[in-house]
Amino acid sequence: MTSTPTRTDGRALDQLRDIRITRNWLDHAEGSVLIEAGRTRVLVAASVEPSVPRWRKGSGLGWVTAEYAMLPRATNERTQREAIKGRVGGRTHEISRLVGRSLRAVIDYKALGENTIMIDCDVLQADGGTRTASITAAYVALHDAVSWLRERNLLAGEPLKDSVSAISVGVVNGAPMLDLKYDEDSTADTDMNVVMSGDGRFIEVQGTAEGEPFDRGLLNDLLDLAAKGNAELRDLQRAALGLAVPVGK
Amino acid sequence: MTSTPTRTDGRALDQLRDIRITRNWLDHAEGSVLIEAGRTRVLVAASVEPSVPRWRKGSGLGWVTAEYAMLPRATNERTQREAIKGRVGGRTHEISRLVGRSLRAVIDYKALGENTIMIDCDVLQADGGTRTASITAAYVALHDAVSWLRERNLLAGEPLKDSVSAISVGVVNGAPMLDLKYDEDSTADTDMNVVMSGDGRFIEVQGTAEGEPFDRGLLNDLLDLAAKGNAELRDLQRAALGLAVPVGK
Amino acid sequence: MTSTPTRTDGRALDQLRDIRITRNWLDHAEGSVLIEAGRTRVLVAASVEPSVPRWRKGSGLGWVTAEYAMLPRATNERTQREAIKGRVGGRTHEISRLVGRSLRAVIDYKALGENTIMIDCDVLQADGGTRTASITAAYVALHDAVSWLRERNLLAGEPLKDSVSAISVGVVNGAPMLDLKYDEDSTADTDMNVVMSGDGRFIEVQGTAEGEPFDRGLLNDLLDLAAKGNAELRDLQRAALGLAVPVGK
Amino acid sequence: MTSTPTRTDGRALDQLRDIRITRNWLDHAEGSVLIEAGRTRVLVAASVEPSVPRWRKGSGLGWVTAEYAMLPRATNERTQREAIKGRVGGRTHEISRLVGRSLRAVIDYKALGENTIMIDCDVLQADGGTRTASITAAYVALHDAVSWLRERNLLAGEPLKDSVSAISVGVVNGAPMLDLKYDEDSTADTDMNVVMSGDGRFIEVQGTAEGEPFDRGLLNDLLDLAAKGNAELRDLQRAALGLAVPVGK
Amino acid sequence: MTSTPTRTDGRALDQLRDIRITRNWLDHAEGSVLIEAGRTRVLVAASVEPSVPRWRKGSGLGWVTAEYAMLPRATNERTQREAIKGRVGGRTHEISRLVGRSLRAVIDYKALGENTIMIDCDVLQADGGTRTASITAAYVALHDAVSWLRERNLLAGEPLKDSVSAISVGVVNGAPMLDLKYDEDSTADTDMNVVMSGDGRFIEVQGTAEGEPFDRGLLNDLLDLAAKGNAELRDLQRAALGLAVPVGK
Amino acid sequence: MTSTPTRTDGRALDQLRDIRITRNWLDHAEGSVLIEAGRTRVLVAASVEPSVPRWRKGSGLGWVTAEYAMLPRATNERTQREAIKGRVGGRTHEISRLVGRSLRAVIDYKALGENTIMIDCDVLQADGGTRTASITAAYVALHDAVSWLRERNLLAGEPLKDSVSAISVGVVNGAPMLDLKYDEDSTADTDMNVVMSGDGRFIEVQGTAEGEPFDRGLLNDLLDLAAKGNAELRDLQRAALGLAVPVGK
Repeated sequence: MTSTPTRTDGRALDQLRDIRITRNWLDHAEGSVLIEAGRTRVLVAASVEPSVPRWRKGSGLGWVTAEYAMLPRATNERTQREAIKGRVGGRTHEISRLVGRSLRAVIDYKALGENTIMIDCDVLQADGGTRTASITAAYVALHDAVSWLRERNLLAGEPLKDSVSAISVGVVNGAPMLDLKYDEDSTADTDMNVVMSGDGRFIEVQGTAEGEPFDRGLLNDLLDLAAKGNAELRDLQRAALGLAVPVGK
Repeated sequence: MTSTPTRTDGRALDQLRDIRITRNWLDHAEGSVLIEAGRTRVLVAASVEPSVPRWRKGSGLGWVTAEYAMLPRATNERTQREAIKGRVGGRTHEISRLVGRSLRAVIDYKALGENTIMIDCDVLQADGGTRTASITAAYVALHDAVSWLRERNLLAGEPLKDSVSAISVGVVNGAPMLDLKYDEDSTADTDMNVVMSGDGRFIEVQGTAEGEPFDRGLLNDLLDLAAKGNAELRDLQRAALGLAVPVGK
Repeated sequence: MTSTPTRTDGRALDQLRDIRITRNWLDHAEGSVLIEAGRTRVLVAASVEPSVPRWRKGSGLGWVTAEYAMLPRATNERTQREAIKGRVGGRTHEISRLVGRSLRAVIDYKALGENTIMIDCDVLQADGGTRTASITAAYVALHDAVSWLRERNLLAGEPLKDSVSAISVGVVNGAPMLDLKYDEDSTADTDMNVVMSGDGRFIEVQGTAEGEPFDRGLLNDLLDLAAKGNAELRDLQRAALGLAVPVGK
Repeated sequence: MTSTPTRTDGRALDQLRDIRITRNWLDHAEGSVLIEAGRTRVLVAASVEPSVPRWRKGSGLGWVTAEYAMLPRATNERTQREAIKGRVGGRTHEISRLVGRSLRAVIDYKALGENTIMIDCDVLQADGGTRTASITAAYVALHDAVSWLRERNLLAGEPLKDSVSAISVGVVNGAPMLDLKYDEDSTADTDMNVVMSGDGRFIEVQGTAEGEPFDRGLLNDLLDLAAKGNAELRDLQRAALGLAVPVGK
Repeated sequence: MTSTPTRTDGRALDQLRDIRITRNWLDHAEGSVLIEAGRTRVLVAASVEPSVPRWRKGSGLGWVTAEYAMLPRATNERTQREAIKGRVGGRTHEISRLVGRSLRAVIDYKALGENTIMIDCDVLQADGGTRTASITAAYVALHDAVSWLRERNLLAGEPLKDSVSAISVGVVNGAPMLDLKYDEDSTADTDMNVVMSGDGRFIEVQGTAEGEPFDRGLLNDLLDLAAKGNAELRDLQRAALGLAVPVGK
Repeated sequence: MTSTPTRTDGRALDQLRDIRITRNWLDHAEGSVLIEAGRTRVLVAASVEPSVPRWRKGSGLGWVTAEYAMLPRATNERTQREAIKGRVGGRTHEISRLVGRSLRAVIDYKALGENTIMIDCDVLQADGGTRTASITAAYVALHDAVSWLRERNLLAGEPLKDSVSAISVGVVNGAPMLDLKYDEDSTADTDMNVVMSGDGRFIEVQGTAEGEPFDRGLLNDLLDLAAKGNAELRDLQRAALGLAVPVGK
């Protein structure tokens, strides 16, 4: 892949932004993370509730779900609060569902027991990639919430089957690139969010042609970039959690 | 690909359900289609409005958007009306946005002029694949609405750059298969909706691991199946529209 | 009554439109009917739920209720979805209540046992008379849902005390006429919807002076027309249900 | 008609409750009436706005509309506020529409000019017949609001073509009776609200079989009672307005 | 304090408007009061419910809460109904909470037992001071509702620890004055609502600088006026309840 | 005042928590502040919009308004999002209005010109005093937004007439104290929020007896404490803004 096209922040095409993962940013939550990916900043809280939704009671199985929202001035132009509008918008719904689904893919419900872990992702500042940063941070907060349960002997087993992270890739001015900033994202021809497990398999692939439809070759280039980015994020997650980072992955 | 696993309706793994596309099912709408894919039945109406949303006025550009909904007894168990609940659910929002985005990918806004085409997809009966059937039918209704505009000399050019269709693929009991019915969909490990242009490129790829994450090989198998299905749907669309079906595709 | 005034579709003043009643239009519902009255087309589903609303639990009595809605492009001009507006409009509420009330008038709650039959009337295409067509079709769907319950020995007796049908009558250009189409309805001076039992008595009479108030003589003429129309509808319902049509009533 | 059956308050079957109409109960409104019909008490305000709804602007025509509501403790058991529930109920919608329609039947829009008269009917205490009391009082408030406009030379003519009043009738324990109290209304077999113009013609007839369907003879008895009651109400309205009461009507 | 500045209705600066408290204005409610303070008119109903909110069940403690609302034409210009808007406004919420809090300050929950008294304050006509009139009247209605419970032996003790009343004070054209009418209130520099117990202590003090901030001296003058007004209101409440009015207070 | 009663964090009764004011915490907003008062953490953004609400257009006057909200896990127990509930709660409304009113008290609308400054206060973590911290931080963000306008020559004068800050005071276990933490606030007998201008006058005084009513002496003690706290906050604001702190105040 050629690196000739330049990016507005000087990164290589296959380079992530600087990522900072701060655990325990909140005092009350069972798990909490402030993730910073360049100027994007998302606060994630994991709340443990010792019960499950009604439709799941008595099953012995746990539940993980998520809500995503943006502060009104996270964006360049202020956006109206959804609470004021009285309804949650389509984009918010869609991302909330994506985050929850992504986390559930690495959860063993039985091991979790009849506990719910509720993930709140609140975007404090947005510069592209807020949904993927949410997922990457949410895994770390989830890990801490699971530890909180383990320390209190409230688990029926080991609920985390693997880690999960997510990154965006896209085609800007004809060049496939990793981890799009807002200015890149808003001019991308193709935009793809890829959620992967720690062992390098796919949990969710969402690719959209914003302009021209894309062909199979381009799709493959984008998936390669995403796999590289997610492998690096997995290592950053492990480092943040104080876990050994696997060698040679 | 082996055909050994059997399907509940006896289809081959790479076989579409019977598809019936009935144009002009409604008397009032500028374009309308009743699509039947097996027992799935979606009524699609295309409404022409000689104006565009406020944020687009004066741009000379047109707009295409879509809304998707299900009748309460489209499903096996009755579901509550969203109008009664007072809010549109996440799934409805998500699919409405997908349908609109898919159609816009083949639209030349400039050629459309300052007209809006509003697509309504109402699921009369659901048996899996309602969002992909909606997209496939919506293209036909859109085509008719464009013809309606053309006959009245209300276009600034030729707004349809290509056709668009969509199909679901998934992995059921370890076997990749095309066009999942509800019983297959609800037990699938991986579920993917693929929207493609008539020339065989990708407009949207949405793949989700419902159980195990999936690897690159499986992803490739699923994309192959989707390409085959969408090529057949494109030919069915052309036939329904009375257009010549391309040979050897 | 003089037949001199002509109607836009050539019908006699006391003539119904062509009515087509198709049972089992849906695969999932316990009862379902597509009714076509000229260009008006309503899909009615009857859903059986083996319980009653909270305020009725333990009473031994059943319940029948209804919801009415229109698809956005049922009408000549597209109307906004009530789910999008976030509230059900006055007209929708009013008709839903009318349909439910009309059906309950022929129900023996005790014989129904603690079951609820929920009627959904969705107007696919509107050309006047959608509320009366809904009632007429709903009775047939209700009959099928009751049979479904009977076949499963879930009834405490015979819940249907009589049949119920409905028709509109009105005064257009001074002439009383039966079964108004939209163009007639929208220019009518007086508009009346009459719901009747199979034995020819009144269940609901709703007459409104749209222009001039009307006098007792005109009211009587309209009730005569309605009685004639409802008698014919009752016979059509019986025919659709495969029941003997009474002779010489 | 036999008078044998006794009523809980000792009235004759064809006797209205004591009606008290107090004009100018409010200081701000252009017209206002407190109507008391037995224990039923409704406060009606008529508000003049020197404009019309958007869809009517430039037509030269006026508009009259109405809203009906109940205070939470108007009823024997407290009912929840609709503002708290966040939606207006079906019954409220239905009555609001009925009141508006009834008043519009006696309005000459052209003479009213591009003014709107908004009628607010708020039930302070309910003991049956709140919707009919609302209509009867609303006419008087409307009359005062029209006078307010006339005194300011804001009318294009004389907008009131006639008066309008309303009363309920019903069949209780087999006996047709006039002006039902709540205890009568809640046990009535048939319940009918009849809106009439001052000249004795019908504006709205809404009859409902709560129990048994009713036949033509009973319908005629009820209409006779309603005509008697409305004639008396018309005289009471005229007296309240200081107008000569017609003799021999 | 100088009395030089004149008030639009000729009152002295430290003089209340004429207050009229009518008990039992409603037939259904366990306690009800129509309070008139000049042209301000509020109808207050106290409803007894023999249970408490879910979060309080089994505690042995009672609950008192309140809702405040205005009729649309209580004000000089008609205001839209909150039920129509579908949401309760900030001002309504704020006053409802204030009324409930004020009453709860004089309630012994244990003596009340597991009963709820729900207070509804509906402003029929507004001319300033509606929230304070609501509190003053609500205490009287509450007193009657407590008597209703006492007569039925439904209390665990004597729940009313003291009386409560409220009055507004403010600075208009530089002069501190008591009990502001609307025209005074809307031009006041400082506006203060003071809720006091019968023994002359403070339950709630809410002072707002509408124009200039105010200093400690002015604050003291306003509190003196409020104490005078509340002492008079306490005596009026006692008189209305037929209780001995304390001498020399 | 005696200092004998000890506080859970060892502070003196008249001592503020550690306050940290971080300006420019956000990149997009025209003014932004992260305020930390002990464990309470509020992010405030000031957004400039070059226009005013409709009812103010053409007046030449500016506008300042505010919205307050809490992240779901700001609190010890997770609270449901108001956007999900579909309505803004009473407490949120009340605080939003308080913040806006407090800031407007120091604004010269004419000097601001037809600009709106929108203040968003989002509580990231709550440990008591979130509304007063919001006001104190909002002033600093407002100051920066005004500077932003001044640098672009968009002002008609100098809109800030003074500074504004706020602090809570209360009576806990009989002892008046300054700046309550959550554990103190939830057991306080009296709770008061006091908003003051930089010159030491009152903008808003809101005192509530949570338990016993309070007398004039206690009220005076609380106001003294609040005056001391607000003077310190004013100095901290000036220091954060790089302004000279007045001596001897």
